[in-house]
Amino acid sequence: MSLQDLAPAYVRAIAPYQPGKPISELAREMKLDPDQIVKLASNENPLGMSPMARAAIERTLPELARYPDGNGFELKAKISQRFGVQGDSIVLGNGSNDILELIARAFLTPADSSVFSEYAFAVYPLAIQACGAQGIQVRAVDYGHDLEAMRAAIRPDTKVVWIANPNNPTGTLARPGDLIEFLELCPPQVLVVLDEAYTEFLPREKRSDSIQWLQRFPNLIVVRTFSKAYGLAGLRVGFGLASPEVAGILNRVRQPFNVNLLAQAAACAALDDTIFLADSQRVNNEGMAQLTDAFVRLGLGFIPSHGNFITFHCGDAAALNLFMLQRGVIVRPLAGYNMPDSLRVSIGLPEENARFIAVLEEALGE
Amino acid sequence: MSLQDLAPAYVRAIAPYQPGKPISELAREMKLDPDQIVKLASNENPLGMSPMARAAIERTLPELARYPDGNGFELKAKISQRFGVQGDSIVLGNGSNDILELIARAFLTPADSSVFSEYAFAVYPLAIQACGAQGIQVRAVDYGHDLEAMRAAIRPDTKVVWIANPNNPTGTLARPGDLIEFLELCPPQVLVVLDEAYTEFLPREKRSDSIQWLQRFPNLIVVRTFSKAYGLAGLRVGFGLASPEVAGILNRVRQPFNVNLLAQAAACAALDDTIFLADSQRVNNEGMAQLTDAFVRLGLGFIPSHGNFITFHCGDAAALNLFMLQRGVIVRPLAGYNMPDSLRVSIGLPEENARFIAVLEEALGE
Repeated sequence: MSLQDLAPAYVRAIAPYQPGKPISELAREMKLDPDQIVKLASNENPLGMSPMARAAIERTLPELARYPDGNGFELKAKISQRFGVQGDSIVLGNGSNDILELIARAFLTPADSSVFSEYAFAVYPLAIQACGAQGIQVRAVDYGHDLEAMRAAIRPDTKVVWIANPNNPTGTLARPGDLIEFLELCPPQVLVVLDEAYTEFLPREKRSDSIQWLQRFPNLIVVRTFSKAYGLAGLRVGFGLASPEVAGILNRVRQPFNVNLLAQAAACAALDDTIFLADSQRVNNEGMAQLTDAFVRLGLGFIPSHGNFITFHCGDAAALNLFMLQRGVIVRPLAGYNMPDSLRVSIGLPEENARFIAVLEEALGE
Repeated sequence: MSLQDLAPAYVRAIAPYQPGKPISELAREMKLDPDQIVKLASNENPLGMSPMARAAIERTLPELARYPDGNGFELKAKISQRFGVQGDSIVLGNGSNDILELIARAFLTPADSSVFSEYAFAVYPLAIQACGAQGIQVRAVDYGHDLEAMRAAIRPDTKVVWIANPNNPTGTLARPGDLIEFLELCPPQVLVVLDEAYTEFLPREKRSDSIQWLQRFPNLIVVRTFSKAYGLAGLRVGFGLASPEVAGILNRVRQPFNVNLLAQAAACAALDDTIFLADSQRVNNEGMAQLTDAFVRLGLGFIPSHGNFITFHCGDAAALNLFMLQRGVIVRPLAGYNMPDSLRVSIGLPEENARFIAVLEEALGE
């Protein structure tokens, strides 16, 4: 007998998440100078982090031998004030990935099913699988969530439905009216996870008032992250907002010190730094134009995106990916999403985008 | 129907872990000056963190908008080299608490049972409960693990046995020979978790060569943390060592970016800082003598401890705890461990210990 057989079959069947390749790893593999590598693979903020967040981290460094506040008092107070929710509606996570897994772990068992969309964020099926629940994947429409089909796919044993808005890796966006209709027609005992990791990149008129919806839909869970527009991916912090009863259950399966001390301090400060957030949005809008202009000029199809990344179509994506890696440009292959003809590129600084475009042109010329 | 009912009964039954009260929380509650509060409640390192770790953090700050390396290449390489294990035997955790939960989540289901000792670290029964498995608590002997009784308690459905060595909160230590005997007689398909969070405080002659045992016992999992002697509790980093097949399963249920970027960098540096570790051991030994001398002088019983804390007996511990909190001294009540007559005090700096002793004397004089 192998000791692996001690784990349930559904655990043994988990295929690990494929993250964007770290710069240090590519430098080792290809013997490249790390400073010459451009990483546009993980939808990170090319501006780095907010200077206010950095100052908060530096102020907190002397306390680092202390455990974090397991209840996250300061950060919850800041989120309460900023988003108009009560503290008992908030769950803090080690990145929003943690929140997604807490939802699965708290509510999904091998007797349950869970609905997600084709091309939706890869963590949903992984989290479902890790709990032994049955994942129900619903065919996408134009690379986006088919909300009507997702509603129709809900079965009596369905506990959780996952909606990424905007979606990663396709950048598609559902309209607020369609989401409200979904929530109205969804059975009230089915939890609806609205993962808004990229919402800060949306212009105000396209954003959903999802947090206001929490009052009306106690089965709604809104998930946010500090890893994208707030530029704190390395620190790991995100949060979920839900009715107090749902948040209470999630807090029960949460590890007592899941969010580190610096992450809590930095997230508080980041919420105050509206200038940094506006800069991030501006750089993203400009980079989006720079990249889409290039795709149009080069005759490459792409999926119009509402995030800080674009998925484009390029034929043999594996070959193009390798070509780029050899030249020190890291983008994200999407074969794991069953999109072997596409790559996802994150929006970087103008010079990083230009470097990507230059290598792309070089590849197309060969 | 309440939405909480969507969660399985074993999740709804989880009682949250009671952490040590944060300084900021006591300051709010009692309207005290945080700088006047002495926290000896969470077995933290009173020296703070290693200066080398701090330097590594500061060097890494500019990278904080990047995701951490999900594979932890550098830290695994450092652990490999320091402890003589292969990289595929290592699992990195968001604190060792994460490793403990990964073990439960990977191997325990409602069909399984798991054995732990009375007075053992509270996270074991919580982690077992969160998976719906049945916890089997074995009566302690002299506040320590009764390894023979624990072995006898193993049933056909037992998948995991937990041994804390030294144990928190009692500070008891099992002898290496007894542990080896336990491993020899334990069924090979039962995983044995040896949680050595406090091992660095032991004099060399009392330490188990547990990492060497991994070769012989593929069902052994050794768990270590950077939160105690290494002084990085606020950053959250720990690790597990196991046979590649067991480590492979644990890595499968691990969140892709569970250990943050600064934690990885700081842990690498902390492993190199042997001077800081020696200082931590010295301060701990001196503080242990200072506190035990005081308990003897005051006629208070205590459990001889091999950690960086001491559990002492004081009658109405809740009243003494409140008395201390009102005077700005935070220790740990143990009612949750069914020890309502005892408190646990962490070993601090000489002046912190003196402050605790002075307040203790004041309480006993009233």
